Amino acid sequence: MALIAHDGTALQRLLDELGRLPGIGPKSAQRIAYYLLESDAEEARRLATAILDVKQQVHFCPICFSYATRDTCDVCADMSRDRSTICVVSEPRDVGAIEKTGSYHGLYHVLGGVISPMDKIGPDQLHVKELLQRLADGEVKEVILATNPDVEGETTATYLSRIIKPLGVKVSRLASGLPVGGDLEYADEVTLGRAIEARQQV
Amino acid sequence: MALIAHDGTALQRLLDELGRLPGIGPKSAQRIAYYLLESDAEEARRLATAILDVKQQVHFCPICFSYATRDTCDVCADMSRDRSTICVVSEPRDVGAIEKTGSYHGLYHVLGGVISPMDKIGPDQLHVKELLQRLADGEVKEVILATNPDVEGETTATYLSRIIKPLGVKVSRLASGLPVGGDLEYADEVTLGRAIEARQQV
Repeated sequence: MALIAHDGTALQRLLDELGRLPGIGPKSAQRIAYYLLESDAEEARRLATAILDVKQQVHFCPICFSYATRDTCDVCADMSRDRSTICVVSEPRDVGAIEKTGSYHGLYHVLGGVISPMDKIGPDQLHVKELLQRLADGEVKEVILATNPDVEGETTATYLSRIIKPLGVKVSRLASGLPVGGDLEYADEVTLGRAIEARQQV
Repeated sequence: MALIAHDGTALQRLLDELGRLPGIGPKSAQRIAYYLLESDAEEARRLATAILDVKQQVHFCPICFSYATRDTCDVCADMSRDRSTICVVSEPRDVGAIEKTGSYHGLYHVLGGVISPMDKIGPDQLHVKELLQRLADGEVKEVILATNPDVEGETTATYLSRIIKPLGVKVSRLASGLPVGGDLEYADEVTLGRAIEARQQV
């Protein structure tokens, strides 16, 4: 899609690059490109710098494999966190989602994916070995398996549960049930079934 | 919205900058930020460079006020274009829209807005003076007014028509009517009314 066919190169290159981003189609790319052209140079420079900085400054934490800007991520470095609990998630973004709840004060471990035979991803392709190493010194008392409640997430959780339990570490799984604010009538049967099974005394 | 509250600075800055773009909410910003974190460094660098290049290389053409990467824009520099016709548009992006049709081979003049008393934009705030200067040497025989078919666009077209006609230059306006592929049943009354008034013999 040539936006200004007669005025190619720089603009077209920006459109191509923007179009590669998730959720950005040709129309959105065009809108953003024009916005950047019309905005002052300082704003465009700040965006470009922010992109470069993120790639330069953010790397994987060598302990939990979440994103880190220092040697280790802020959670691993924070000595006030509960070091007896590790929450196992699939992706670094899941750490952000759980942190936002404010309900969790332990450590994390990012697997970097889930077990998926279809995609040839087994435990060896994930940070499972490193998780077991972290459990070795006996400081960790509980592992919370927070992979997604889908087939692959459940498979991964079942696998991890089976190898962690023998180490004498308590293993738990995030509760499945009705979303808060959700409507019973519109819940799918599996979710409603889980909510009934996992009902809690009040 | 803190995405990874514990891992602030670089990521948060990128989220803030992305969130400023048109059509990008916090969720989209987050998705793009994670995409950039996961993509290779080369791709992120290309995007950042494309943003900087556009701001550095693209400026306004001193003749028609469209975007240009050279001294003048490619349309003004192209000696094969019909120099007897000028198409007057509101914004540089409109040049792109008309160029894409392939139906126009004349020159352009970008006003840089439309007359809007509410926003205190009168002819003096637009590139009207420069348009009249381009008409002075008598080379231009027709001016096509291609402002939007809305109140402000019509006002601007009426104003320009009134000052250009006395110069002995033919003035025309883009046709209003049914969109091609549109459905008569769903056309609004004003558009349908225009289409009837502007009916053409076949």
